Amino acid sequence: MSSTREILERVQAGLLSAEDALNQLRGSAVEDLGYARIDHDRVRRRGFAEVVYCEGKTPEQSAEILARLAARGESNVLGTRADVETFELVRHMVPDAEYHPVPRAIVVRRGSERQIGSVMVLAAGTSDLRVAEEAALTASVMGSRVERVYDVGVAGLHRLLREIHRIRQARVVIVVAGMEGALMSVVAGLIDKPVIGVPTSVGYGAQLQGLTPMLSMLTSCVPGSSVVNIDNGFGAGYLAHMINELGEGVHGHRED
Amino acid sequence: MSSTREILERVQAGLLSAEDALNQLRGSAVEDLGYARIDHDRVRRRGFAEVVYCEGKTPEQSAEILARLAARGESNVLGTRADVETFELVRHMVPDAEYHPVPRAIVVRRGSERQIGSVMVLAAGTSDLRVAEEAALTASVMGSRVERVYDVGVAGLHRLLREIHRIRQARVVIVVAGMEGALMSVVAGLIDKPVIGVPTSVGYGAQLQGLTPMLSMLTSCVPGSSVVNIDNGFGAGYLAHMINELGEGVHGHRED
Amino acid sequence: MSSTREILERVQAGLLSAEDALNQLRGSAVEDLGYARIDHDRVRRRGFAEVVYCEGKTPEQSAEILARLAARGESNVLGTRADVETFELVRHMVPDAEYHPVPRAIVVRRGSERQIGSVMVLAAGTSDLRVAEEAALTASVMGSRVERVYDVGVAGLHRLLREIHRIRQARVVIVVAGMEGALMSVVAGLIDKPVIGVPTSVGYGAQLQGLTPMLSMLTSCVPGSSVVNIDNGFGAGYLAHMINELGEGVHGHRED
Amino acid sequence: MSSTREILERVQAGLLSAEDALNQLRGSAVEDLGYARIDHDRVRRRGFAEVVYCEGKTPEQSAEILARLAARGESNVLGTRADVETFELVRHMVPDAEYHPVPRAIVVRRGSERQIGSVMVLAAGTSDLRVAEEAALTASVMGSRVERVYDVGVAGLHRLLREIHRIRQARVVIVVAGMEGALMSVVAGLIDKPVIGVPTSVGYGAQLQGLTPMLSMLTSCVPGSSVVNIDNGFGAGYLAHMINELGEGVHGHRED
Amino acid sequence: MSSTREILERVQAGLLSAEDALNQLRGSAVEDLGYARIDHDRVRRRGFAEVVYCEGKTPEQSAEILARLAARGESNVLGTRADVETFELVRHMVPDAEYHPVPRAIVVRRGSERQIGSVMVLAAGTSDLRVAEEAALTASVMGSRVERVYDVGVAGLHRLLREIHRIRQARVVIVVAGMEGALMSVVAGLIDKPVIGVPTSVGYGAQLQGLTPMLSMLTSCVPGSSVVNIDNGFGAGYLAHMINELGEGVHGHRED
Amino acid sequence: MSSTREILERVQAGLLSAEDALNQLRGSAVEDLGYARIDHDRVRRRGFAEVVYCEGKTPEQSAEILARLAARGESNVLGTRADVETFELVRHMVPDAEYHPVPRAIVVRRGSERQIGSVMVLAAGTSDLRVAEEAALTASVMGSRVERVYDVGVAGLHRLLREIHRIRQARVVIVVAGMEGALMSVVAGLIDKPVIGVPTSVGYGAQLQGLTPMLSMLTSCVPGSSVVNIDNGFGAGYLAHMINELGEGVHGHRED
Amino acid sequence: MSSTREILERVQAGLLSAEDALNQLRGSAVEDLGYARIDHDRVRRRGFAEVVYCEGKTPEQSAEILARLAARGESNVLGTRADVETFELVRHMVPDAEYHPVPRAIVVRRGSERQIGSVMVLAAGTSDLRVAEEAALTASVMGSRVERVYDVGVAGLHRLLREIHRIRQARVVIVVAGMEGALMSVVAGLIDKPVIGVPTSVGYGAQLQGLTPMLSMLTSCVPGSSVVNIDNGFGAGYLAHMINELGEGVHGHRED
Amino acid sequence: MSSTREILERVQAGLLSAEDALNQLRGSAVEDLGYARIDHDRVRRRGFAEVVYCEGKTPEQSAEILARLAARGESNVLGTRADVETFELVRHMVPDAEYHPVPRAIVVRRGSERQIGSVMVLAAGTSDLRVAEEAALTASVMGSRVERVYDVGVAGLHRLLREIHRIRQARVVIVVAGMEGALMSVVAGLIDKPVIGVPTSVGYGAQLQGLTPMLSMLTSCVPGSSVVNIDNGFGAGYLAHMINELGEGVHGHRED
Repeated sequence: MSSTREILERVQAGLLSAEDALNQLRGSAVEDLGYARIDHDRVRRRGFAEVVYCEGKTPEQSAEILARLAARGESNVLGTRADVETFELVRHMVPDAEYHPVPRAIVVRRGSERQIGSVMVLAAGTSDLRVAEEAALTASVMGSRVERVYDVGVAGLHRLLREIHRIRQARVVIVVAGMEGALMSVVAGLIDKPVIGVPTSVGYGAQLQGLTPMLSMLTSCVPGSSVVNIDNGFGAGYLAHMINELGEGVHGHRED
Repeated sequence: MSSTREILERVQAGLLSAEDALNQLRGSAVEDLGYARIDHDRVRRRGFAEVVYCEGKTPEQSAEILARLAARGESNVLGTRADVETFELVRHMVPDAEYHPVPRAIVVRRGSERQIGSVMVLAAGTSDLRVAEEAALTASVMGSRVERVYDVGVAGLHRLLREIHRIRQARVVIVVAGMEGALMSVVAGLIDKPVIGVPTSVGYGAQLQGLTPMLSMLTSCVPGSSVVNIDNGFGAGYLAHMINELGEGVHGHRED
Repeated sequence: MSSTREILERVQAGLLSAEDALNQLRGSAVEDLGYARIDHDRVRRRGFAEVVYCEGKTPEQSAEILARLAARGESNVLGTRADVETFELVRHMVPDAEYHPVPRAIVVRRGSERQIGSVMVLAAGTSDLRVAEEAALTASVMGSRVERVYDVGVAGLHRLLREIHRIRQARVVIVVAGMEGALMSVVAGLIDKPVIGVPTSVGYGAQLQGLTPMLSMLTSCVPGSSVVNIDNGFGAGYLAHMINELGEGVHGHRED
Repeated sequence: MSSTREILERVQAGLLSAEDALNQLRGSAVEDLGYARIDHDRVRRRGFAEVVYCEGKTPEQSAEILARLAARGESNVLGTRADVETFELVRHMVPDAEYHPVPRAIVVRRGSERQIGSVMVLAAGTSDLRVAEEAALTASVMGSRVERVYDVGVAGLHRLLREIHRIRQARVVIVVAGMEGALMSVVAGLIDKPVIGVPTSVGYGAQLQGLTPMLSMLTSCVPGSSVVNIDNGFGAGYLAHMINELGEGVHGHRED
Repeated sequence: MSSTREILERVQAGLLSAEDALNQLRGSAVEDLGYARIDHDRVRRRGFAEVVYCEGKTPEQSAEILARLAARGESNVLGTRADVETFELVRHMVPDAEYHPVPRAIVVRRGSERQIGSVMVLAAGTSDLRVAEEAALTASVMGSRVERVYDVGVAGLHRLLREIHRIRQARVVIVVAGMEGALMSVVAGLIDKPVIGVPTSVGYGAQLQGLTPMLSMLTSCVPGSSVVNIDNGFGAGYLAHMINELGEGVHGHRED
Repeated sequence: MSSTREILERVQAGLLSAEDALNQLRGSAVEDLGYARIDHDRVRRRGFAEVVYCEGKTPEQSAEILARLAARGESNVLGTRADVETFELVRHMVPDAEYHPVPRAIVVRRGSERQIGSVMVLAAGTSDLRVAEEAALTASVMGSRVERVYDVGVAGLHRLLREIHRIRQARVVIVVAGMEGALMSVVAGLIDKPVIGVPTSVGYGAQLQGLTPMLSMLTSCVPGSSVVNIDNGFGAGYLAHMINELGEGVHGHRED
Repeated sequence: MSSTREILERVQAGLLSAEDALNQLRGSAVEDLGYARIDHDRVRRRGFAEVVYCEGKTPEQSAEILARLAARGESNVLGTRADVETFELVRHMVPDAEYHPVPRAIVVRRGSERQIGSVMVLAAGTSDLRVAEEAALTASVMGSRVERVYDVGVAGLHRLLREIHRIRQARVVIVVAGMEGALMSVVAGLIDKPVIGVPTSVGYGAQLQGLTPMLSMLTSCVPGSSVVNIDNGFGAGYLAHMINELGEGVHGHRED
Repeated sequence: MSSTREILERVQAGLLSAEDALNQLRGSAVEDLGYARIDHDRVRRRGFAEVVYCEGKTPEQSAEILARLAARGESNVLGTRADVETFELVRHMVPDAEYHPVPRAIVVRRGSERQIGSVMVLAAGTSDLRVAEEAALTASVMGSRVERVYDVGVAGLHRLLREIHRIRQARVVIVVAGMEGALMSVVAGLIDKPVIGVPTSVGYGAQLQGLTPMLSMLTSCVPGSSVVNIDNGFGAGYLAHMINELGEGVHGHRED
């Protein structure tokens, strides 16, 4: 851990007291609001600011955390699963905040506008768009160029096949599918890039609120794919951007 | 119920006593072995003799029931999930009995050799053959011509697509698939005949001994398909033959 | 695939450029609305237009897709799980659209009025009618003559037995049942036609929102039956019509 | 609690010291073997000796407990799920012990031979006999006259209907069924006596080792029935005898 | 089946035509409302009129069925899980109908007022009262004298023990319990009468909407008990009355 | 049981009649409200008054029970999962009652104000506060000094590590975590005090309303921890106080 | 973190180079065997050596790890779920190793013989002894005095009640129970000490290999209890000792 | 699809007949063994030969498929979950085949020896090595340089922290963990590279054969991670290599 090493070397050189070193090692880049500890260190450690999952927080809590992250201005800021009430509170504090109603997300642009890539987002059906758009927005806000191919479920396979050439151009492919989730296996079998499956809760009965496509994607007979939580468009977009970045030659491990 | 009507008319005509009529109404075509009641009426009622599920019965019990059905000689006789020990006991009593080791089934030929059809059996992987062969044998023993296309899972879609023309010729298609069971949806989307999905217990972990492909097939986004129990090749073959028979113009409701 | 063959022969004959052939092979019968790709090829491939599952789509999305399918006029058009708001939007664009409140379905008549058959729909209880009517309407809209026998659950077996003669006349029987789903096994044991089980979410506690009758039907001790998803009246009606059509001697595989 | 009252009255009368009373109240009818505390009080409290569930105990432990209960001689003694090794150990100590191989039970006759009743035991299939015989033996050993009707599953309903008159004669009916367990609902709908459902683990796949018939029986649409654990023939036989005894006019609450 | 015999003897004697006999055998005591078939035969067959489960039916459907059963006047009439709207419709047609708000039940008194018994209803907690009162009302309406002991969960065992003498006086005991359902085992271990466990959906988290006490009761280490569906107070009360009736010496099997 | 002994000695000494002794043994410290039996004995037996779980009770029922416990004045009184309506009713009867909106709890101070300890409450995320505050309030009301460290989930491990010194000072640590619940294992591995895990229902999809962190905590690879029900802050706080009390040297077993 | 502070102070004082400090901070008390990293720091950090879970390791791996821990000699050494083959390998290297066949555990005595306490271990049935003995041995090896009360399941409540006085003497109580696990709630309701529930996999059918008592214990209506994994006697014994130690006044947080 | 375009252009140019073009389009690179169709096209399409999952195939079937793939010599060949018997059959046909006993895999080296990377494989415990080694071997055989850090579960966090610097050097990290699977979240929170979680079936009880860590990893609060099936080391290694290859600048989409 070179930063630990640096701290220690500064102690050895008499430039830092043991007490101060201890404090630094304990991670001073944390802002404590009582109900939340904002991890401002995350930009340095993981390359992107803490993302705020607004569900389960009060609008006031979400808004304050988002505003403080925006105030830092170190990277774009993202709040997911946010309602309009939360957004209104944020806009009061951060006038240039944007609201994206389909994925229900709040964005504050504070990072570079450069986009690398690309990340391809597929959706099996029209009902999966909410999740697909959360994935697309997340990857985009983090810095990936995003392409979309929607409503290409396996019931009409030719809809998918006619787009397969375009799909193969991407560095990483996100497949968003409810019902039985078969689209992920079919896509993974046709391309040679990493595929991230996002099961959705779209369906009824034996679909079990998304457990069935989740299990189905996990037991896929096609290697080269992996799965995130049900309806977790955010997680898929985040991971896709990380992989996309690797492909760009952005290898640097930020913190050490 | 015309047979009931006939019985009543014969009572009215004085050709039958009330006592005898009662016995007839109570279904005298049952042979009681104590541990089992053989339903000899089933050929008349459903067009095929009772099929013996040998698992959970002692070899002696299975063998005796099979031998008694064979002795009736009204239709082919089928015993499923039978081990070799049971077969040896049956062969002792019925020398022309056959054993099929892959589906572990015993057959005694007593019916017509005519075959109608056809029924197509698809298997996603080599590991699904045991179940696929049970389906194929059942349909065949009941009187269907059976075709097989094996190892056409969605990991290599072109293996399926090159056979799709042949698959479309069948009257009804059985899809046997373990893992995530995606093959059923893909096939159903490409043809216009009834598809019967048979999930298998092939796989591990999140495959949940076949529950995952079973749930996956049930939530298929493609209509025109339905599902039988995990590993139930027999049930699929039986139903496929019934549908095939309808297509042949064998409409006759046997009993009334 | 003869249509592919035809395209290739026309290329070979110089009647078609490689570029155009490629476009045709990629399936040009798809209408892309951004949020949806309407599969106009489905009438040719599967004999009936794409059916619109309205749940999870916005009323505007559902209505537009239904209107475009109706404009094609190639077959009857069906929208399932549609609310009145969606219907009002459709009626604005397609004045002769019908709304069926019990199954919550929208129908636009554009196909032949001929009805073949028949398909029998049984419901175990009064609470299962919503699903039973979805099955009946689907089969009817596709071209099957439908008969109904409702409230014949096994608690009063004589209610079923007195209708058994009528039930045996049908080519295929749909059994809609909640609670423990026992009706399907009892019916399948009494007739010699394919039986399609539709478990419903009617019940409470150990009924597990329909999982119990679904599992129960899948493990039925009576062969000749298969199962569709919980509350999936549409899927049952669709499959029943396909089987009914086979029995009519409508063997033709539409596309090749 | 009159026995407590009696103890207290004897203390009041000076016939019993407080210390001795305390010991008596603490239940001295317990024999402590270290690994087990034999509840000799159970005959008085519940009318039948403690029944020994041999699975999970060493043969030596089971045998010693059974021998000690037999030595008391207050009622018949029953050991369930016992293997032959355990029985051999018991027979060494109790020469007149009997072994019943189908239900795998050990019986020592020490009670009255009078049998009241009757209790009817139905089994859906031949594979359910092991459990059915455990139920029958338990009720019989406790003092009920038992009748059996086996292999009357709903696949051939007439097999059941022809026995329905005999079934109606019983005071209480046990229905043992694996697969989907539909027999319980059908029987309960045809009679007016209490029905005890015993789901069995007979089946595969979606049968879930008996969970499916268990859930199915619990959600039965027919009142007048209740359910015991999967494969719990013992529990069903025990409860059936208690109900049978009530019908005999054996109301006496043993302990007070 | 003596009634069948009687019909046949009347045919033999020329007192009945075959046609009429057939109709009678087919069970003419069914009133068909289209959406429902009222089983008026049930009083004769099972000793109590069909009970109407109002959930999932429209208020109009429930009310009409209840009114028709009341019009027959053959036994008390019971509608369970009924809302006030349904009751208002019933009262319009049947002015002396009663509404019981805690168990949400409608009663029309048409049977004898004699009460036999008794049936004891225990509830573990105050939150279980809704279910306990459904059980108590059902048994009472069918003709049992009912006693209640509420809020005697195992957290304070002495609350139960002080009532145990009273509990032992009953012929059959219903135990209603949510949370972990331990009360049923404790009670069954203390008495020698049949115990019917009713798990309730009271609780949260690992209580799984009642599945946990249901499973817990089914695996009880104490014999003499059985279980009905979660929150099924009605089923428990119905069964308890049947057992209570047996204890009264009401053995008569009604129909044959 | 010395109190039983005392009662018996007083009988022996003629100071108490058998009848009165019996009543005392049956536990007269129960106040019967019909729908509830207040266990006033609990302070003596377990050191704290019965806690009222208000969910599933009517506001009137909850309020009356709370008021009666407050009237006794033997210890602080706690009502959990109480809404404001219930609180208003309580305040009417007990003017000094307090309402705590985050954990939705009612408190009436009637006990000592001394606080021992301490109990540490950790929460993984801001959304877990509702449960964490229920735990903290419960332990505090019972007499423990409580410390809080919130929003220290494993996504930013340094937030936890910088507080680890403070966490180690406590006698017992409660870890409240939703999502995957990993925080509990990490904390337990870093300290040498008992850890109580409280899974919360915070999350979605595969989080299964808290089942996933519950199962995860139960299978922790780190010993020294145990788990309470999902969202059961109350149970964790109660247990933590008991352990804290032991550490204070409050060994006395209250009742004997 | 005082040890970190000490390291830093030694760096500041020039007694330690930054490089060495870094190594120390990285935890040099880890012995790397390739397949395992022995955490020798655990005695210091948590007061007891790493316990070796032998299942899933080869006998050679388990034996080597145990031998190395024994060689340290800092505390008693415990290997759980070990077979005899593993023990033979250990004994070869550590002649004074002991094997405990009921809990299948290996012990090497290297710590103090002082025993504090006490910890009470209850088992519901004879079949639960394997798990109960694992709990008892673990607590004992760690330094607690252990008492045992076995076979006190709720089927015969007086067996428990007569021991309740003894149970109340302990500082912490472990309740080991399979079947429905009701014993834990009953015990927790009767005492005022922490109760640790250990569900076991003893039972069948709806017992679900221990899930049912696990869920049942988690939803207990009695506070003051918590639960460890199914069959996890080790975890219960470990936690019980930690609580017992707190009660002894062993507050010292070992590491800082 | 340029290869389709090429075929069409060759048809247009008269270099290819329509018949031959059709065959090529149907994918002639499939070798049909009856029970299996070897997909020799996969090297071209996905960059690596079909991997043979040997479980569920007979040793003869597995061996023949592996030998045929090796004969092609286009890439390294991998057979997973292979027993020694299968390996002996393979070695007979392919003398330079290797067997790796820990992951139970067969390898035939036919590809380049160049290794890029790197891929880091972490295992939480010694019992997880079988799966970790399958992941490591797969990535290595495909061409990745692999590093391993084993036995760094969260029970002793410092074991992980001291290796964190090394872990950060890798391009992609595989985390193999049984029990509760917490290691994946902790690692993902500390690094900025894609993390692939592999839950294992190591554990017991509530671990549910790996379902618990699988669900736990899916609900991780840390983004940047995704999950493969339980025990699916192969799938993780395969995906890790794909991502690693992207990072190497191997962007080329092989087939078009």
